[in-house]
Amino acid sequence: MWGGRFVAGPAAALAELNRSLPVDYRLWPQDVRQAGAWVRALTWAGVLDAAEEATLTAGLERVADRLADGAGVGADDEDVHTLVERLLYEEVGAMAGKLNTGRSRNDQVATDLRLWTLDALAAVDRELAALGAALVARAGEGVDELLPGYTHGQRAQPVRWAYVLLAHAWPLARDRDRLRDLSERVAELPLGSSALAGSGVAVDRVLLKEELGFRAIAGNALDVTGDRDFVAEALFVLALAGSHVSRLAGELMAYTSSEVGFVRLADAYCTGSSLLPQKRNPDVFELARAKAARTLGDLVALLATLKGLPAGYSKDLQEDKTFLFDAVDTALLTLPAIRGAIETLTVVPERMAAALDPSLLATDIADALVGRGVPFREAHGLVGRLVHLAEAAGVPVNEVGAVEAADVHAALPEILAELGGWEESIERRATLGGSSRAAVLQQLEVLRTRFLD
Amino acid sequence: MWGGRFVAGPAAALAELNRSLPVDYRLWPQDVRQAGAWVRALTWAGVLDAAEEATLTAGLERVADRLADGAGVGADDEDVHTLVERLLYEEVGAMAGKLNTGRSRNDQVATDLRLWTLDALAAVDRELAALGAALVARAGEGVDELLPGYTHGQRAQPVRWAYVLLAHAWPLARDRDRLRDLSERVAELPLGSSALAGSGVAVDRVLLKEELGFRAIAGNALDVTGDRDFVAEALFVLALAGSHVSRLAGELMAYTSSEVGFVRLADAYCTGSSLLPQKRNPDVFELARAKAARTLGDLVALLATLKGLPAGYSKDLQEDKTFLFDAVDTALLTLPAIRGAIETLTVVPERMAAALDPSLLATDIADALVGRGVPFREAHGLVGRLVHLAEAAGVPVNEVGAVEAADVHAALPEILAELGGWEESIERRATLGGSSRAAVLQQLEVLRTRFLD
Amino acid sequence: MWGGRFVAGPAAALAELNRSLPVDYRLWPQDVRQAGAWVRALTWAGVLDAAEEATLTAGLERVADRLADGAGVGADDEDVHTLVERLLYEEVGAMAGKLNTGRSRNDQVATDLRLWTLDALAAVDRELAALGAALVARAGEGVDELLPGYTHGQRAQPVRWAYVLLAHAWPLARDRDRLRDLSERVAELPLGSSALAGSGVAVDRVLLKEELGFRAIAGNALDVTGDRDFVAEALFVLALAGSHVSRLAGELMAYTSSEVGFVRLADAYCTGSSLLPQKRNPDVFELARAKAARTLGDLVALLATLKGLPAGYSKDLQEDKTFLFDAVDTALLTLPAIRGAIETLTVVPERMAAALDPSLLATDIADALVGRGVPFREAHGLVGRLVHLAEAAGVPVNEVGAVEAADVHAALPEILAELGGWEESIERRATLGGSSRAAVLQQLEVLRTRFLD
Amino acid sequence: MWGGRFVAGPAAALAELNRSLPVDYRLWPQDVRQAGAWVRALTWAGVLDAAEEATLTAGLERVADRLADGAGVGADDEDVHTLVERLLYEEVGAMAGKLNTGRSRNDQVATDLRLWTLDALAAVDRELAALGAALVARAGEGVDELLPGYTHGQRAQPVRWAYVLLAHAWPLARDRDRLRDLSERVAELPLGSSALAGSGVAVDRVLLKEELGFRAIAGNALDVTGDRDFVAEALFVLALAGSHVSRLAGELMAYTSSEVGFVRLADAYCTGSSLLPQKRNPDVFELARAKAARTLGDLVALLATLKGLPAGYSKDLQEDKTFLFDAVDTALLTLPAIRGAIETLTVVPERMAAALDPSLLATDIADALVGRGVPFREAHGLVGRLVHLAEAAGVPVNEVGAVEAADVHAALPEILAELGGWEESIERRATLGGSSRAAVLQQLEVLRTRFLD
Repeated sequence: MWGGRFVAGPAAALAELNRSLPVDYRLWPQDVRQAGAWVRALTWAGVLDAAEEATLTAGLERVADRLADGAGVGADDEDVHTLVERLLYEEVGAMAGKLNTGRSRNDQVATDLRLWTLDALAAVDRELAALGAALVARAGEGVDELLPGYTHGQRAQPVRWAYVLLAHAWPLARDRDRLRDLSERVAELPLGSSALAGSGVAVDRVLLKEELGFRAIAGNALDVTGDRDFVAEALFVLALAGSHVSRLAGELMAYTSSEVGFVRLADAYCTGSSLLPQKRNPDVFELARAKAARTLGDLVALLATLKGLPAGYSKDLQEDKTFLFDAVDTALLTLPAIRGAIETLTVVPERMAAALDPSLLATDIADALVGRGVPFREAHGLVGRLVHLAEAAGVPVNEVGAVEAADVHAALPEILAELGGWEESIERRATLGGSSRAAVLQQLEVLRTRFLD
Repeated sequence: MWGGRFVAGPAAALAELNRSLPVDYRLWPQDVRQAGAWVRALTWAGVLDAAEEATLTAGLERVADRLADGAGVGADDEDVHTLVERLLYEEVGAMAGKLNTGRSRNDQVATDLRLWTLDALAAVDRELAALGAALVARAGEGVDELLPGYTHGQRAQPVRWAYVLLAHAWPLARDRDRLRDLSERVAELPLGSSALAGSGVAVDRVLLKEELGFRAIAGNALDVTGDRDFVAEALFVLALAGSHVSRLAGELMAYTSSEVGFVRLADAYCTGSSLLPQKRNPDVFELARAKAARTLGDLVALLATLKGLPAGYSKDLQEDKTFLFDAVDTALLTLPAIRGAIETLTVVPERMAAALDPSLLATDIADALVGRGVPFREAHGLVGRLVHLAEAAGVPVNEVGAVEAADVHAALPEILAELGGWEESIERRATLGGSSRAAVLQQLEVLRTRFLD
Repeated sequence: MWGGRFVAGPAAALAELNRSLPVDYRLWPQDVRQAGAWVRALTWAGVLDAAEEATLTAGLERVADRLADGAGVGADDEDVHTLVERLLYEEVGAMAGKLNTGRSRNDQVATDLRLWTLDALAAVDRELAALGAALVARAGEGVDELLPGYTHGQRAQPVRWAYVLLAHAWPLARDRDRLRDLSERVAELPLGSSALAGSGVAVDRVLLKEELGFRAIAGNALDVTGDRDFVAEALFVLALAGSHVSRLAGELMAYTSSEVGFVRLADAYCTGSSLLPQKRNPDVFELARAKAARTLGDLVALLATLKGLPAGYSKDLQEDKTFLFDAVDTALLTLPAIRGAIETLTVVPERMAAALDPSLLATDIADALVGRGVPFREAHGLVGRLVHLAEAAGVPVNEVGAVEAADVHAALPEILAELGGWEESIERRATLGGSSRAAVLQQLEVLRTRFLD
Repeated sequence: MWGGRFVAGPAAALAELNRSLPVDYRLWPQDVRQAGAWVRALTWAGVLDAAEEATLTAGLERVADRLADGAGVGADDEDVHTLVERLLYEEVGAMAGKLNTGRSRNDQVATDLRLWTLDALAAVDRELAALGAALVARAGEGVDELLPGYTHGQRAQPVRWAYVLLAHAWPLARDRDRLRDLSERVAELPLGSSALAGSGVAVDRVLLKEELGFRAIAGNALDVTGDRDFVAEALFVLALAGSHVSRLAGELMAYTSSEVGFVRLADAYCTGSSLLPQKRNPDVFELARAKAARTLGDLVALLATLKGLPAGYSKDLQEDKTFLFDAVDTALLTLPAIRGAIETLTVVPERMAAALDPSLLATDIADALVGRGVPFREAHGLVGRLVHLAEAAGVPVNEVGAVEAADVHAALPEILAELGGWEESIERRATLGGSSRAAVLQQLEVLRTRFLD
């Protein structure tokens, strides 16, 4: 494609390093689609006549058919653009040489990749919505299942199972917001920028934008041919979404352990051991956890690549696709598996109930002291002493004897007597966003609409 | 603050590790402001009476005054929250113990940090706008200065100096868009979430939101107390902005070298050498480049911290502030220095002109062949041969003899004769976003409005 | 220091960005020590006479005394080198100007930082040894405490508590090996390299090496002034050691949960909650986990800084100290706290014993079938069925009725009857490195010597 | 393989996520080799008799032959271990079920991967040696070619071309040292560790170690099955080596630019442009630069994966191979291309000479003042003024008029007159490791031995 200026072809070691077809091959639908739009733009600009337009358009259609049939598998072209151009030559002969008038691989690849990214982000968004909807559906069934809520990995206060699931759904709703904002920025058209300085052909970029479904036209050709902000932002949003899934996975993994046992994975989402016949392993959660690290690696690779590059195209940017494709594939592999695991897991309410130990009522006791006029910080100290006393005596905190309790504070015996159960305790946290029934039902309602596809 | 339950205080090694005051000390204005809003909310909720409200409010004001006077410098409290609470005790006595009724450090620190982040992002936004405006201003003066545009670090086509500067301004405009989107997400109120399950006091979170200037109320207390998405996204936006500045810096650094010499730093933005008396070093650009790496490190640290954590507060999250403060400080240190360097640098048009060598017209020659009906790919090959010929003969490509040129293609002698100069060449790239005068003037207009503060 | 060549001093924004004293101040002992060696080298080279040597040496001693007394606190010099030079001027007048003959800040800072790093790595090594020794000591007490060993977070086979602790000690032994290999590479002398091309003074670098305690002399001045491999490798070793501590912390954190409860933190290594009076939080483990992420951030920052820099000194390298100091400080803060937590935690053998459920004998049953000639893969399937049967029947796997067991395989009833207890099961894993008593005692012996300081 | 315990097989979404064969397929030679050693160990342990040993050994040989013939291409087994086991079943029938007696995929994959890594690191080491040798060879030809040495991207002092090349060779020598140290740590045998607690079969691990060519036996089965330190360290060494190559590439890329022009790439190591017919792009250097970022991403991914995992095998570790294979492949792709570019590039001594401007003698002038008793710091200031004077007058610093020069310092006219040329200037830097001829020749000698394969 660029051989005229050189005496000899590239050395094998360079060709190996330089060749991107194994990675960018999957961009062929975008590349062909873009070529079609470019043919129309060249025609409007008077570079092609109607007959040429028809020939090239039909040729491109045949190229697409051949590629769909696997014509590119194992090809040894340098990249997807040269592959498409070569096939077009095979279809229409020398006229194929007119296709790239005023167009460069620099604006071409930027356009292809933005088209691909828009589709990919939409696919990820659908999977995020499906996972969020699955969490909300399971939460809808879990309003009356009570379990300890944890901070620092330690039991803190009683909460509803629905509430815990929803705490993992909200981040996915935020991920979708980020994808939406990002997609706006992806949808800027590079085509017509040529190599760095704008096209030598007076193509109508508004027409190209409409034709290819972009939202806006990139404002500076030097910038947009070297701009991979949209890849970086996509990798970030995927990495953060990956971290959300890893948090959900990490928490559920603890809950599937024999020691906690709040949930049980379905057989279809367990794996076994090659040596230990009894094992039911939560590989699905472990892998989801690791995938967050993998996507972080992709993000770092891209940002470190960009550092210090001048404006305009540098070959360093060729690596972008490896990172982006990996992160998108990872998301599309992980999200359905996690969703399946959640949809099919069994909740074990009796294990949840068994984990509710009376010390989780400590804050309720302190709040009751506050209700009797004790400043909270003081009440906190008094209940701390009560807990310590109970522990030393080996009794639950709500069963400390009246005499000993009164020794800590006169009101405590009465407070302990009136303390009530887990449901009452939870209902005391009735602020917006809390774990009370009403607050949870409201969250369910809001989130259902956030996860409509 | 939490001693009641324990026989002994923390070991020195733990206290050292655990203590966050040296880092979170700078949150005191937010912590005091938040405390004031909380006092009002507790009063509305009937937990405090009017006299208590007045006492606590006045006490907090005196605490703020004392902190502004340095009362916290060298303090050995565990964190900023205990510092503020201790000072309040000093001001109002035991009544200070009522402040934290229904509030936990978990929602407190999340609220403080969001308030701080909103201010910090606004400050970064102003600096980005100022840098963008400086680039646009210098571009306004550089429409008629022509120089080579580069791809792959090699001369590619002639462009306007304004155009190069604007290619570095557009990314900053995108950064501002990201900051705007992000700020929407930062402005969700955690307060009222308490430790994990909502507050035991029926505070009005709408009132709190209004009081503290938030846009919305966080929907799930367990989520928001463990949510650091806003920190991650801030770090990403700062890292990407940092990479933009590094690209600008990297390109300008090359232009200040003796070999290129397109621009010359003002004395006030040079540094010298301790050994080499003649040196004028562009430390400002080198440091800007390195700062992008530093901010990337902050982003990685946070995302790796988040991986696999359960919902709700984990102490791991305490590290978030180190990373965020560092990244914001880095941005606020770097952006003004880079701006100053750009505002004061001198352009050397004669060096720019001297770098315009005729091979940069190769694409114009090919386009002229296209105009005579040669398919572009074929034209490209022909001009490649012409360039090779010129190089072998040691003459500029536009001075290849008519006979030799005609040997490559019959139209070439005429094309070479009519080729014109750099200005004509640039004006041929007149598509939207190109380097032609009209396209550049239009960009200037658009970007001026994008960088209004 | 470098003002002669410039009309005006640096702009405030540049000075702020450029100034490294707040970070590199702690290098003053190394800088003064190096200066002393340089004075001797200049004297040997004939640049200074004996009287000048005596004056400068005495002056440097006074500078060191003043710095030890805080003379540098709040100074506004550009960096530690200019601070030391200024103080020397204050002590000895114009003769101070002779100190930097043939020396540049480029070789100076590289020498200072290598000296500092050698000390810092030795300090980290001592802490790693102490933590390893603490694990080994606790392991020595835990040979007879049996608990489930886990894979995939699920109970797998019974093991000794000592064995689990030792599994976390071995990585620390490897860390020490890495530190040893690395220290060899740190101990190469930069001094005498000057700015980039070697010193203009014929100093004896062998003398300098001996004087400053280096192992070897850096072979190329351009390389060594721009080489930060030793910082990168130190950051890597610290990041990997940090990941080891995070793994130990993560596992112990799970064991301190109410649900597992195998160990209990001492009060002195717990923290409480500002709201929840009953909490005993393992902040020490959470922070250790997060610190691994922090050090990873430091490593990334440095490696991303180095990418693409030319040989020789670039100002980008100035950031190296921020990352290295942070990582070393982090290690020295975290390791003693984790060690203290381990030295003081209480083991709860009854909780360990209670977690040993009969399904952990599944592999023993399969192995017994193998002993009776059943190929292992087949035995694995049979025991899988047995486990499934037991689960369905709600009985422990070793209590499946003889009839049902015989249905799976004729030998099973006998095997189940002879299965024995946990101790027997563990002793069956008697290979080198296994969990049997002898294998554990051997590990204890080996590791005791690996952690001698 | 592990189906006995489950009613149903894994869901498609889980199977997709879980399946590692596409990645770990390339481990089959190691897996088969290991299986052979295990057969021998089982025989020595009395688990297999001689006939079984012969059958399994022969069966494994046939499996290896079939795999070499592509029997595993497109297979849908879960991983390489189940692939090998399935093929062995096809070869020897039910007896294949005996192979995995006392062995688990946990010790199996750790052993396979260590075997693979040892070979891979040796291959990388050979390529590093070859690149180092190429640099040394080109340096040997470049002792007499003089050019500016740079710091901060600015001309600093004259140096030899050989010296610059050697500055990039030393880091590669250090990389080889790191590979050597690392390989020691890779060569520890996991086999015999079984799932987590040691093997239930009394295999002789010394025999296994010898058979498989390991240096030592891993000391704790729980540790070694969950230990990926060797992968992390390999990724780090590759990332640092990648950064070295990126620095070499970055510097050479600047030297190939039209503006600098010190070297010219051979046609075989240039690439052209799809649009710009005149372009000779240094893609080889740009890609080498980007590959450093890519490998950094791999390192981050692994370290972030490891954070917080318990000891023993977690499925998270399955991702290790993706990162390691990518980093090794990247190194083996990049190193030969860079080497080819260096071996074939042309040096342009006249461009180097033209870049030597007299201000590079500034330090020589200062040193000459020092030789006349002026303290260096004072001399530095005087020469700074001289340079400034020359610049203002528009003359080279060594051609400032005697009157003006004497105004700065009385000795300057004489010093300027005696200053000499570039060769003299370089020879003044004759310290060990400097740029003088003798110092460079000594480096050449040392490095030649460091890069013997």
